[in-house]
Amino acid sequence: MAYQIQKSEMQHCIDLCKQCHDICLKTALTDCLRVGGKHVEEEHFRLMLNCAEICQTAANFMLSNSALHNLVCATCSEVCNACAASCEQIGHMDECVQVCRHCAESCEEMAHVYSLRQSNKRPSGVPPLMHS
Amino acid sequence: MAYQIQKSEMQHCIDLCKQCHDICLKTALTDCLRVGGKHVEEEHFRLMLNCAEICQTAANFMLSNSALHNLVCATCSEVCNACAASCEQIGHMDECVQVCRHCAESCEEMAHVYSLRQSNKRPSGVPPLMHS
Amino acid sequence: MAYQIQKSEMQHCIDLCKQCHDICLKTALTDCLRVGGKHVEEEHFRLMLNCAEICQTAANFMLSNSALHNLVCATCSEVCNACAASCEQIGHMDECVQVCRHCAESCEEMAHVYSLRQSNKRPSGVPPLMHS
Amino acid sequence: MAYQIQKSEMQHCIDLCKQCHDICLKTALTDCLRVGGKHVEEEHFRLMLNCAEICQTAANFMLSNSALHNLVCATCSEVCNACAASCEQIGHMDECVQVCRHCAESCEEMAHVYSLRQSNKRPSGVPPLMHS
Repeated sequence: MAYQIQKSEMQHCIDLCKQCHDICLKTALTDCLRVGGKHVEEEHFRLMLNCAEICQTAANFMLSNSALHNLVCATCSEVCNACAASCEQIGHMDECVQVCRHCAESCEEMAHVYSLRQSNKRPSGVPPLMHS
Repeated sequence: MAYQIQKSEMQHCIDLCKQCHDICLKTALTDCLRVGGKHVEEEHFRLMLNCAEICQTAANFMLSNSALHNLVCATCSEVCNACAASCEQIGHMDECVQVCRHCAESCEEMAHVYSLRQSNKRPSGVPPLMHS
Repeated sequence: MAYQIQKSEMQHCIDLCKQCHDICLKTALTDCLRVGGKHVEEEHFRLMLNCAEICQTAANFMLSNSALHNLVCATCSEVCNACAASCEQIGHMDECVQVCRHCAESCEEMAHVYSLRQSNKRPSGVPPLMHS
Repeated sequence: MAYQIQKSEMQHCIDLCKQCHDICLKTALTDCLRVGGKHVEEEHFRLMLNCAEICQTAANFMLSNSALHNLVCATCSEVCNACAASCEQIGHMDECVQVCRHCAESCEEMAHVYSLRQSNKRPSGVPPLMHS
């Protein structure tokens, strides 16, 4: 099958979500608060914490082997991309940008692969998918 | 404007997300575990906890006034509907079914209204929306 | 028994924890970030988010009817008191101060009442308690 | 100083908390639910999820460099020990037992070292410590 997914791919995505959560939370609540200025600009700072939270939730859905993790991964991918763009605009946040982009890519892959699989074989009680 | 949203509508959705989180978490970890049988069936039980978590995350995005709460609300709406369907199938879970459905409706509304608004006036650094 | 606790007392503590979580998270990520200055001072701002998180965890332990909720409530009480003191020092944060203090008191009560009860009748597999 | 703590010790504790969170959440919501029987016994199953949650919160407090992480680590240590004891009693859960014990030890160390340091030099606005 073209869209067979390996267990290790999901574990890879979990690892990236956890890494992205950690760096966003830690950077925001230590470096950004200490430096101040544009680093505590409202939209940017909030986005870093939102990104940390959705990454945590996506990781938890995958850890629990949720049949709906693809939905959370799709959302996580978009929030991570927005956070990467915001960090890029602020500048001097290369590590955050890179980690957010990697996480976004991996989450997008998880979202699409599972949506494709589920559109062929949809379990009962599960609603239509966003990306199908 | 047709899609003007009131502050109180968001607060209403926050309240429903918190109510849905509470009832799913509490019911799963007290009643379902005590009764056992089909109430701890793998897919069903996991879905109740997944539902509690995404409701918590959606509420937190809205509390923080996140510009991307619509994405989390869209996902939350689908998870709540799946949870309601699963609870309905198990039977004798009328309160959960009702609360999940109300939360799903409110979240879907939040997702759509904000997607419409943002597709007209999209802030910089924010990616294309799922529902546009 | 002197230290009989009513179900409604726990529900009252859950409600206060949720209220404290909401006001700390919302105030920090909207008002404090918008106003800036001393409101985004490192220790203070971080404490508000730490307070929101421990309140959420304490509420979740109580919702799940955890036998160890008294430990989390004890910690939550101390974090809430620290947050109240910090908000008082910043000034113009009367609602936060008041809500944190109420939550701290309720959590402290939950911690002590349950520790007393459990020191008389300790379930197997549960370690010695902090407050006994 | 005798109780100087290295940055890497905190990172080590964060890593153990995350590992403990992951294994407890994953084992409960996949293996335990699939196997059933005593693995979904009320007190035991709930404790595994409580353990996952407090580990997540402890990790988040440390990632944010919270001055009060020692309080959460103290509580986390007790919950992890209770979870290890419960898993030991259930049997065939060696990995969970081992990871919970390691996390409990590391958290206890973090709790004590920081309490000692803070009892000498207590920051303003921070309440008396549990372990002092």
